[in-house]
Amino acid sequence: MAYKDNYPSKLLEEAVDAISTLPGVGRRSALRLALHLLKQPVENVHHFTSSINHLRDDVKYCRQCMMISDDEVCSICSDRSRDAGTICVVESVRDVMSIENTGQYHGVYHVLGGIISPINGIGPSDITVRELVSRVAALCAEGSPVEVILALSGDVEGETTSFYIYRQLAQYGVTVSSLARGLGFGDDLEYADELTLGRSIVNRQIFRP
Amino acid sequence: MAYKDNYPSKLLEEAVDAISTLPGVGRRSALRLALHLLKQPVENVHHFTSSINHLRDDVKYCRQCMMISDDEVCSICSDRSRDAGTICVVESVRDVMSIENTGQYHGVYHVLGGIISPINGIGPSDITVRELVSRVAALCAEGSPVEVILALSGDVEGETTSFYIYRQLAQYGVTVSSLARGLGFGDDLEYADELTLGRSIVNRQIFRP
Repeated sequence: MAYKDNYPSKLLEEAVDAISTLPGVGRRSALRLALHLLKQPVENVHHFTSSINHLRDDVKYCRQCMMISDDEVCSICSDRSRDAGTICVVESVRDVMSIENTGQYHGVYHVLGGIISPINGIGPSDITVRELVSRVAALCAEGSPVEVILALSGDVEGETTSFYIYRQLAQYGVTVSSLARGLGFGDDLEYADELTLGRSIVNRQIFRP
Repeated sequence: MAYKDNYPSKLLEEAVDAISTLPGVGRRSALRLALHLLKQPVENVHHFTSSINHLRDDVKYCRQCMMISDDEVCSICSDRSRDAGTICVVESVRDVMSIENTGQYHGVYHVLGGIISPINGIGPSDITVRELVSRVAALCAEGSPVEVILALSGDVEGETTSFYIYRQLAQYGVTVSSLARGLGFGDDLEYADELTLGRSIVNRQIFRP
């Protein structure tokens, strides 16, 4: 009997199968994690799994910016001290957290929930561009000055998405800026150091495609 | 608001807290995994957590060798073609799987479930040495020839545990062996540590090409 494909226990194999679906976790690491969990007190393991179930089942998204939130409107959107006329458009929840960590930004956000990528079959209707346009239209109708900051990655998908959003917003005559690139092209937001990212948001430039 | 200690959602924070208890998973990786799980279909996440709960709640241990098993006696101990008189003593479940993968061993195992380590407060009574001694005593009472192979790590804890077991088994007059230590296959001499190389030259074997 070889254990490469034949685990000593069906339950162990199923747990390893499940754990190895996580990104960056191979079967060898998954086995190590499964055996680690097996050695923990039952209540710790139940707490581990229930906190993941709770997150997936009960998390809400801010109806304004689509950020993860415990309430209908997130703590940033409901913060009166923040500039509701400056909207920073990001791909993901993690990007919001990265920018918040710089402490340099006092506007609000819009989480696209993805990026336009024909290769991955993700089109404009799969991300929250429509909601962004409605937000901008509503602000313009109120007569407030609006700036949209495109804070997307510097790769092809990011540039494509920025350009698409820029065109969608053209009719409203709002200011559209993009992050200053102190970072190299192709750098991911999440791996940027806070100083560089903070500079990038302060030195954002008018978007000229 | 900085997200370093202040997550956008309590549920997210709790999930990150739980995931970062895994060995080798920091808070940054835990956040990445939590957000990945959040994007998966609900049923996938529930399958993920329930397979972990099942493992922890329902796994059995072989009453003979203490290996993880779906039954009272594991598939190795219940395999009549294996030599029940040769017992390979290992620290963990993973060691059994590693040795099985070599396809070179046809005896049975004994899983200690740990290693004697005064620094970590683990004494002989915390691992399954008593069970091993009973097994050996029972085999001796049957008059079968017994060999115990100590397949523990080559560090201080492993050597201490090996020596402790060796002394416990002394009264039964059984053969006690330990894993051959030396250079790995394909290892370069110049990169081998002195201790390993020294052992390799002292325990040299007759060349049989």
